[in-house]
Amino acid sequence: MMTQPLFNRMALIGVGLIGSSIARAARAQGVVRSIVATARSGPTRARVAELGIADRVVDTNAAAVDGADLVILCIPVGQCGAVAAEIAPRLAPGAIISDVGSVKAAVVKDVAPHLPGHVHFVPAHPVAGTENSGPDAGFPELFIDRWCILTPPEGTDPAATDKLATFWSAIGANVETMTPEHHDLVLAITSHLPHLIAYTIVGTADELGQVTRSEVLKFSAGGFRDFTRIAASDPTMWRDIFLANRDAVLEMLGTFGEDLSKLTRAIRRGDGDTLFDLFTRTRAIRRGIVQIGQDSDAPDFGRPHQKKMPPLPRPYMADGE
Amino acid sequence: MMTQPLFNRMALIGVGLIGSSIARAARAQGVVRSIVATARSGPTRARVAELGIADRVVDTNAAAVDGADLVILCIPVGQCGAVAAEIAPRLAPGAIISDVGSVKAAVVKDVAPHLPGHVHFVPAHPVAGTENSGPDAGFPELFIDRWCILTPPEGTDPAATDKLATFWSAIGANVETMTPEHHDLVLAITSHLPHLIAYTIVGTADELGQVTRSEVLKFSAGGFRDFTRIAASDPTMWRDIFLANRDAVLEMLGTFGEDLSKLTRAIRRGDGDTLFDLFTRTRAIRRGIVQIGQDSDAPDFGRPHQKKMPPLPRPYMADGE
Repeated sequence: MMTQPLFNRMALIGVGLIGSSIARAARAQGVVRSIVATARSGPTRARVAELGIADRVVDTNAAAVDGADLVILCIPVGQCGAVAAEIAPRLAPGAIISDVGSVKAAVVKDVAPHLPGHVHFVPAHPVAGTENSGPDAGFPELFIDRWCILTPPEGTDPAATDKLATFWSAIGANVETMTPEHHDLVLAITSHLPHLIAYTIVGTADELGQVTRSEVLKFSAGGFRDFTRIAASDPTMWRDIFLANRDAVLEMLGTFGEDLSKLTRAIRRGDGDTLFDLFTRTRAIRRGIVQIGQDSDAPDFGRPHQKKMPPLPRPYMADGE
Repeated sequence: MMTQPLFNRMALIGVGLIGSSIARAARAQGVVRSIVATARSGPTRARVAELGIADRVVDTNAAAVDGADLVILCIPVGQCGAVAAEIAPRLAPGAIISDVGSVKAAVVKDVAPHLPGHVHFVPAHPVAGTENSGPDAGFPELFIDRWCILTPPEGTDPAATDKLATFWSAIGANVETMTPEHHDLVLAITSHLPHLIAYTIVGTADELGQVTRSEVLKFSAGGFRDFTRIAASDPTMWRDIFLANRDAVLEMLGTFGEDLSKLTRAIRRGDGDTLFDLFTRTRAIRRGIVQIGQDSDAPDFGRPHQKKMPPLPRPYMADGE
């Protein structure tokens, strides 16, 4: 039986953590015949060429999309509108245009008006990543068992949505479809608010008068270090997310603030029962996440623990003996 | 050269994650001649006996401390005062009494008044742990390269503090000494506030009307899942910590709240520069923690990534070809 790649030519605009992971995964699975990539910065383009993860690296967005039947914008959401305007005249008829942005309503609003009627726009958001950025940070397994959310605007050809879903499935993701607005609410609580809070507390800890930065670092294993991972995420990407998903983030912030006030009051009043009840309930959420394979069940996220005990100071002198 | 254990008999009151890790580590390093353990619940005592991590398991706290030259309370901080009162009459002259509580001023206040003049009280806090609880959760390497903070009250015999420091060093920890009050401030920001915020946001996510629990779990890889680990910590232990370190936690909560308000305002006003500046600064903190070995530099905390790509749906039919 003859088989052929799902897409003939995939154009990646932007080759950071996500773009370079898509390139590696798509090639590993043979789902595209060729990959053309571009990036805004010269050094990034040079590095992508050096890594050999694309068949061709070109200098401009317009050149990248030439003849591509799949175009994926892998850039901060704040740049999507301008790039769409730039590539629109060069898009091939029938091409699928997609993105990987963490906000969807704003991307639809910024991108859709620029696109010609002869292409299919299927916005996407793979909910996967690490705290690292740049073309070297990517790896082909990044999307395995993670979810990719598609948010096709009303009127999108279902065949185009299906084809993009097949692409994401082929590189390991589970695919779900929802409206851009619902996506933005869901991600506001599962991703944007957690990042905002992590950035805040890491900033708070760094500015305290009474506790030194050295103390914060040394004793971070008490819990703080868990927050620092996502607070090390790419600043440009995250600035754009908060600006683009403002309303949903502010709404979730409001609810979080009310809940934090309740807990604060419980602490002030010495109301242990309220604390205990919440702390018991939250354990179940963790179990749920582990059960559906969205996190490791190894303690401490499976962080490596050093196994080598220190040499003993000998001889011991036990006093009083 | 003859060597002998640092302590003749170590009594552990409470054998959860920390107590059982101390037992395993102390035995692995040969720093105590024998270990006597007890726990409040019968099933826990039976399990400890089954695991064989203590030389003897006894039914009462008083029996446990009989003849021990090192006694460590490994129980929630809210129980330390009552246990101190119970064991005080049975403590051997010259014994070192310690604990592992995450709050120190309250423990000193609760425990010290009960202890006879012929013992040494050296409170301790190993800043190490996982989200798991109970005797099965412990492992001997838990304290390697982690910090153990000693907070001897004024007037404590320096030789007793030194001896306990040697004990913790021998099982892998770095040791630092500070006042109970300063400890409580430092831990309020590096541990207690992070836990409180994690518990809050996990609770918030679980109660939203617009987003289902199933969606929260599925899309948790966007950041939320990082918070669920510490929000799965032992509820009794953490209730006690917030009640016992109320003032320092409320102070840190106040500062965090102010910082969160500033960021909220920046989002509302579309002030991207303020966001970008903070997000850049917080990256440096993460680097600092990794550099001093308090966290892994592997992306995603070194969480295991599945490596097996899915089988491809074949044959692909590329449309339009």
